[in-house]
Amino acid sequence: MFELLQYLAVISAGLYGVLLARSNAMDLVGICGVAFIVAFGGGTLRDVLLDRQPLFWIAHEHYAWTLFGIAIVGAWIPRLPQRLEQWLLIPDALGLALFSIVGAGIAIETTRYEVSMFIASLFGVITGAFGGLMADVVCNQVPRLFLSTTPFYSVCAFVGCWVYLLLRFAGVDEPIALWSGVVVIVAFRLAAVRWDWRFPATSR
Amino acid sequence: MFELLQYLAVISAGLYGVLLARSNAMDLVGICGVAFIVAFGGGTLRDVLLDRQPLFWIAHEHYAWTLFGIAIVGAWIPRLPQRLEQWLLIPDALGLALFSIVGAGIAIETTRYEVSMFIASLFGVITGAFGGLMADVVCNQVPRLFLSTTPFYSVCAFVGCWVYLLLRFAGVDEPIALWSGVVVIVAFRLAAVRWDWRFPATSR
Amino acid sequence: MFELLQYLAVISAGLYGVLLARSNAMDLVGICGVAFIVAFGGGTLRDVLLDRQPLFWIAHEHYAWTLFGIAIVGAWIPRLPQRLEQWLLIPDALGLALFSIVGAGIAIETTRYEVSMFIASLFGVITGAFGGLMADVVCNQVPRLFLSTTPFYSVCAFVGCWVYLLLRFAGVDEPIALWSGVVVIVAFRLAAVRWDWRFPATSR
Repeated sequence: MFELLQYLAVISAGLYGVLLARSNAMDLVGICGVAFIVAFGGGTLRDVLLDRQPLFWIAHEHYAWTLFGIAIVGAWIPRLPQRLEQWLLIPDALGLALFSIVGAGIAIETTRYEVSMFIASLFGVITGAFGGLMADVVCNQVPRLFLSTTPFYSVCAFVGCWVYLLLRFAGVDEPIALWSGVVVIVAFRLAAVRWDWRFPATSR
Repeated sequence: MFELLQYLAVISAGLYGVLLARSNAMDLVGICGVAFIVAFGGGTLRDVLLDRQPLFWIAHEHYAWTLFGIAIVGAWIPRLPQRLEQWLLIPDALGLALFSIVGAGIAIETTRYEVSMFIASLFGVITGAFGGLMADVVCNQVPRLFLSTTPFYSVCAFVGCWVYLLLRFAGVDEPIALWSGVVVIVAFRLAAVRWDWRFPATSR
Repeated sequence: MFELLQYLAVISAGLYGVLLARSNAMDLVGICGVAFIVAFGGGTLRDVLLDRQPLFWIAHEHYAWTLFGIAIVGAWIPRLPQRLEQWLLIPDALGLALFSIVGAGIAIETTRYEVSMFIASLFGVITGAFGGLMADVVCNQVPRLFLSTTPFYSVCAFVGCWVYLLLRFAGVDEPIALWSGVVVIVAFRLAAVRWDWRFPATSR
């Protein structure tokens, strides 16, 4: 079950990368590269910052295979963006939720030194949202994550990570804490999109 | 005293990040993110490249708290940019100086393998100036650091790091060497801004 | 011989960086910075992802000296871009080939955990091509690597790395496998430029 959802997260992130690359008129190399950055960028940054070896996509190589499969297939389907647009929201929210909670869990369980809940929640956000940020930067766009024109995204991850970490701290069983965090992130994200919750732009 | 100045460096870098994010019409997430990148980006890159664990903002978590405090407060103050502009130069120069000298000192004291003064001076520049570079890249601007339109910045850090490293090599007491380097960087930077010292643009 | 070619690769990458920086009207700091990123960015990313310490440009400091020498000289030669343009293709192809094959070899020989040929080929591409990608991003351009407007580049590296890895796997002597890979990449790249081989742009 968990394995299946991890796959779904990678697939969803990969599809987002394909759409982003296609909207920039990139070729197959660009699609593979951007999909890779979206799906694995956040987790790779987390592993490098926490000095975890080997990186998760080296240890679990089938994720990389799956991703390139999606990129190659996704590159050739005509009018993919139009077809996917209305379907992508839910897997995207699920991908954000799963990556974030897994990232926060990995950080809090680091054994080489103590990591506080605050730092762990930051690693949750980094794992969930920084792949998309890096891909936006590579595609020469100001990261949507940072703009007031898009509904809450990293805020959902941040809140959900705290739900997970606090339940864990309170002694709740790991799977219950984990799924509570995931559900909060997905629900919060869908609600934010539905009712357009966002921070105001700051004035100059 | 040193602790206080470190704080001042983080605060100054954080304020620069707030201004940069506000000039890009970002929201609260963007302000926190950009402030984080400016203040901690260079030091994080240094720690990753030298494989130092844990990262300094994980080991000294209060820096991260301070930074987010600045970002959150800084996001809501009206007309902050106009109010700060004339005051930011000195803490910015001080932040550059402190981060650079600390970075060079950390590199030269690495014990796992020998690091030459040349490499240490590069790490000084990376620590002091690359946070701003990364933030410029994330904000979709060519890094000001690299442009001929701005007065010397990384050059000041480079020169000051050599002053520090050579005094250290000559057997001068660590605190004296350290403060000499800091003073040189601050003075050089302020003079560069005052008299508009810079490299010419290269022709195509 | 090998040492000489490594130097040639660094020089070629450095010159490409100088041209890129000059086309963006950068100053001496920008030229040094961009040349550094082009020449050492891919190898540094490889070393960080594989947790190899010390980084190659810290262990072999003369590469860094050579690079800054090129950058400083290259900054002052008038009309350098026009003079170099017609000569840069071959050292650039050679640089791509050497960096890629060396990168794939380092990845496959990692002893701390097993790295498959697929992952090793990705590290070859990262080592050979990601320095240029990072430099494009820093210069605020969509990476040429990812665009359909340029002939095959990373594809040549990918194919050549597989030639090298498969020959190695088949028991062929290391030097023969290595040079076969290098020759394939150089020949493939020159042919791609000559006959304008590329992937089509994907439709939105």
